[in-house]
Amino acid sequence: MSQRGLFITLEGGEGAGKSTAMAFIMRRLQEANVDLVCTREPGGTQLGEQLRETLLAPSDTEIDPTAELLMMFAARAQHLAECILPALQRGKWVLCDRFTDATYAYQGAGRQMGDEPVAVLEELVQGELRPDVTLLLDVPADVGIARARGRGALDRFELEDHAFFERVRQSYLARAKRSSGRYQIIDASAPLPDVEQALQALVNDLIACPPLVEV
Amino acid sequence: MSQRGLFITLEGGEGAGKSTAMAFIMRRLQEANVDLVCTREPGGTQLGEQLRETLLAPSDTEIDPTAELLMMFAARAQHLAECILPALQRGKWVLCDRFTDATYAYQGAGRQMGDEPVAVLEELVQGELRPDVTLLLDVPADVGIARARGRGALDRFELEDHAFFERVRQSYLARAKRSSGRYQIIDASAPLPDVEQALQALVNDLIACPPLVEV
Repeated sequence: MSQRGLFITLEGGEGAGKSTAMAFIMRRLQEANVDLVCTREPGGTQLGEQLRETLLAPSDTEIDPTAELLMMFAARAQHLAECILPALQRGKWVLCDRFTDATYAYQGAGRQMGDEPVAVLEELVQGELRPDVTLLLDVPADVGIARARGRGALDRFELEDHAFFERVRQSYLARAKRSSGRYQIIDASAPLPDVEQALQALVNDLIACPPLVEV
Repeated sequence: MSQRGLFITLEGGEGAGKSTAMAFIMRRLQEANVDLVCTREPGGTQLGEQLRETLLAPSDTEIDPTAELLMMFAARAQHLAECILPALQRGKWVLCDRFTDATYAYQGAGRQMGDEPVAVLEELVQGELRPDVTLLLDVPADVGIARARGRGALDRFELEDHAFFERVRQSYLARAKRSSGRYQIIDASAPLPDVEQALQALVNDLIACPPLVEV
């Protein structure tokens, strides 16, 4: 029985420090000689990046929530076929900045579409594939929004209101509670050295004792 | 109980003469003072036209069939929310060049994804909405391909092979047979005056005695 690579996703609301954490984890895994693909959603392919641009650009025309949800999964289907699945099958580890948990949080909870349509599309697009490990950078909505606004120009999601981000956070936390075997919650309101120490410990565990995943 | 407008779709494979037929039907309905919205899929909105461009442009990168299917329905969700449903609710008639029957034909049969994923998305995006009348311009695959190739530059679908178009045609015919109350088949291999005569008769019937549709 052959083994596929480990599928790690990084999740969190706006201003949780995902970009910094991605770079940190990537460096640590590469230093440990892990054969690694780093990617992001929506995006990760030419088609996916085109869709990302449309999805994130602030626009005068409102995007219908169902259209947004379907575009997220269209980008994901392409990402899986072109990038993620081939990498995992070759034994590489894949580190992905956001995946389907973000769709449950942003479209399911944030946009209040509910989990049901997300679950239908997850089944259609992913079959049984789920991340092996999901690192959730958790930060109170207010703190995250203040950080995101401090960065400058906001995308279409960052322009949402406080209640939206509170729903996003609670959805992430509820999913983490239900799938505690897969999720690791990191307190991202802590000072950066503490966050990095927590990430380092998680990365060390993954390298020392990666979850067994079979093709 | 208020009445919504009539939802008419025009379907057919490549080279069936859809554009000519669209223009003909539009003129006849406008002459009869029908308050009409003419539109097309994929497209009909700014977002939909962006997706259309990506879907139809020949590209070096293969679009994953599931991604293609989801983009078709993303464009459709936006089209329904922004254009089709508001028009129907205001009592306008909507004449649409392709709709979900095309997705069953092209993605379900042409791309051999089967009807099942199309049906799942149809339910998610449309709920119970279906076209009231579907005009199918039927032409043997060979005749249609020869006509399409005679027009010049081919899009990503027109570049498919004969077996693909044969599957598309057979899917349309099978659906027309199953939903004979909604479908009208026009022999589009006939000379243009005969096709127009058949369309004129159908349009006359629709105007004289439109199917009753309730909101």
